[in-house]
Amino acid sequence: TSEVDECENYFSRTLLDRRSDKRNNCDWLQAKESHPATIYILFSDLNPLVTLGGNKESSQQPEVRLCQLNHADVKDFLAHPEKITLVFLGVELEMRKGWRKNTEGVPEEDEDGLVAWFALGIEPVAAEEFKQRHENCYFLHPPMPALLQLKEKEAGVVAQARSVLAWHNRYKFCPTCGSATKIEEGGYKRVCLKENCPSLHGVHNTSYPRVDPVVIMQVIHPDGTKCLLGRQKRFPPGMFTCLAGFIEPGETIEDAVRREVEEESGVKVGHVEYVSCQPWPMPSSLMIGCLAVAVSTEIKVDKNEIEDARWFTREQVMDVLTKGKQQAFFVPPSRAIAHQLIKHWVRMNPNL
Amino acid sequence: TSEVDECENYFSRTLLDRRSDKRNNCDWLQAKESHPATIYILFSDLNPLVTLGGNKESSQQPEVRLCQLNHADVKDFLAHPEKITLVFLGVELEMRKGWRKNTEGVPEEDEDGLVAWFALGIEPVAAEEFKQRHENCYFLHPPMPALLQLKEKEAGVVAQARSVLAWHNRYKFCPTCGSATKIEEGGYKRVCLKENCPSLHGVHNTSYPRVDPVVIMQVIHPDGTKCLLGRQKRFPPGMFTCLAGFIEPGETIEDAVRREVEEESGVKVGHVEYVSCQPWPMPSSLMIGCLAVAVSTEIKVDKNEIEDARWFTREQVMDVLTKGKQQAFFVPPSRAIAHQLIKHWVRMNPNL
Ligand SMILES: Nc1ncnc2c1ncn2[C@@H]1O[C@H](COP(=O)(O)O)[C@@H](O)[C@H]1O
Ligand SMILES: Nc1ncnc2c1ncn2[C@@H]1O[C@H](COP(=O)(O)O)[C@@H](O)[C@H]1O
Repeated sequence: TSEVDECENYFSRTLLDRRSDKRNNCDWLQAKESHPATIYILFSDLNPLVTLGGNKESSQQPEVRLCQLNHADVKDFLAHPEKITLVFLGVELEMRKGWRKNTEGVPEEDEDGLVAWFALGIEPVAAEEFKQRHENCYFLHPPMPALLQLKEKEAGVVAQARSVLAWHNRYKFCPTCGSATKIEEGGYKRVCLKENCPSLHGVHNTSYPRVDPVVIMQVIHPDGTKCLLGRQKRFPPGMFTCLAGFIEPGETIEDAVRREVEEESGVKVGHVEYVSCQPWPMPSSLMIGCLAVAVSTEIKVDKNEIEDARWFTREQVMDVLTKGKQQAFFVPPSRAIAHQLIKHWVRMNPNL
Repeated sequence: TSEVDECENYFSRTLLDRRSDKRNNCDWLQAKESHPATIYILFSDLNPLVTLGGNKESSQQPEVRLCQLNHADVKDFLAHPEKITLVFLGVELEMRKGWRKNTEGVPEEDEDGLVAWFALGIEPVAAEEFKQRHENCYFLHPPMPALLQLKEKEAGVVAQARSVLAWHNRYKFCPTCGSATKIEEGGYKRVCLKENCPSLHGVHNTSYPRVDPVVIMQVIHPDGTKCLLGRQKRFPPGMFTCLAGFIEPGETIEDAVRREVEEESGVKVGHVEYVSCQPWPMPSSLMIGCLAVAVSTEIKVDKNEIEDARWFTREQVMDVLTKGKQQAFFVPPSRAIAHQLIKHWVRMNPNL
């Protein structure tokens, strides 16, 4: 796969098969929890535990790697289920070499050869203690670009885990009646504890993790030679990127693109074309990337939403992509979908 | 626009500009609430109030039309804000003829010429009373296909209104702390009433309407001549349709398509291509329609999810689309995105 493909898949390429069929199989889940081959990844405050790996080319930055823990490392946490959040992430797609050597003492009938992964959210005090006992590990904090240091395949696992843990963080109570809830289905369902709550009759989205669809669009000038990029006040100085916004109830992707561009910049959009998408675990968005062809050119910025928006020429954008921060402005890093959309346009036939 | 275009837009084509900028303008909203030109659409139990219109061709079924009420019709409801849910939907895209004649008594400075629409949810008892006073009106009930009787443009307004009202129905309490909430921003935000609730610090999705992205896919046989359709137990006998499922946290559209098809039918999918999307207000999904090319053919149905899945030939499907229910099986009506995806495939170059 080419470099573009790899970057387009950041936060989505994964080393796991989710195996949702196992989420209702309590016996299987329980056996895997204490299986010596099982992998745990640890989170505190939605930040994953990482370590620095050596890098062969010493000129480069050391690699940030997820800490892959075993049952023995986390069994003290698991003994206090009221203080943790546990989410079954899936099983490894590929069998491991050396599988046999870890499985002594496991009853043969439990041996299906699958390596399960769990995300484990622990409390800040416990996290601090753990860190003191493991000097080379730390929790990867915001601001956001920090997470983008992870290797591709690990980023996908972290995206899944962080989104589900963030949901448990913010959706502890039943939105329908305000009662407490309990976790089911390996961490993919919360069930109201109040008898007769309407959320218990039929299937309701209140019980399931939330995914917020967002449109993000590379807006092309009617003459095809420029694109529209904007910036929010909270961005680092000089950074411009594609416009974006949440899809509203009762709206298509294409209409959301047209509404958001007009709201934020005053520019009217005609044709819209889907390009690619990217999960964005802050906390749980699905960024749906589009090309949008403008049918008007005058910019009127809505100062509540963005600080500035401008037409940039293909040459300006090409320079920024190839020469980076030496330029008067810059765009998000290549692992963000905005970067990929901008690059997609630059590489398109200029006469399109 | 062609017939296909119209049907692809069912539940999305709208006669309104949402004007989200007005949602924070309480004075404007309040002036519009009592403006004589303002339109109210009424809901009971998430069912819209409709009436039967005459139809010129007497051989056809009478037309189901939304009842468009005025302030005078609903002012008794508005006097009891604790018993209603009010949502600002937007303003009409086109100026009305005869505008002037409705506006007597309105202060000139309030006259911006915009016709505002509101959705008004009322309680079942009040709804029953209202119906008795308006004999030719009724609330359009499930089962689902009932809503599909609405005219295109009205369907878009109902999709928006029903999704937001369903959210208010099920999300009355703060999911973060379990406290009561209040409505803001014209019905597009719920704010926790508990001081110091974490949901009040920063921006959190707990305060905003939920949109659930769903993938729905026309799966094509590796040889290109057949497609995979399935049925759930709860479907009417003989109905088959495209497979579908909710997108999970940390997943792309394309991966969700591959996972759902394999889970439900055992068939593996390679290439996935976005076709079009449709809001589905049951209660608030966004159906993302794709073509998916299978790379395996053996079907193993997961009986928990679906009852049956089969490969159908292009000829079988073509017959069903043109001859309808005389056939051994049938597909959803043309206003459903599944129908459009199936038709899209039938019309594609068979050698593609
Ligand atoms: N947001 C959601 N709303 C409703 N059901 C969901 C949601 N997310 C996951 N589910 C699960 O999806 C099932 C319905 O699946 P399907 O009809 O195949 O889309 C439900 O029974 C739930 O187990
Ligand atoms: N699901 C959501 N999560 C967070 N903010 C939302 C959501 N839906 C709508 N909003 C609004 O969108 C704004 C952020 O917009 P933007 O950064 O342009 O996507 C927030 O300040 C909210 O007013």
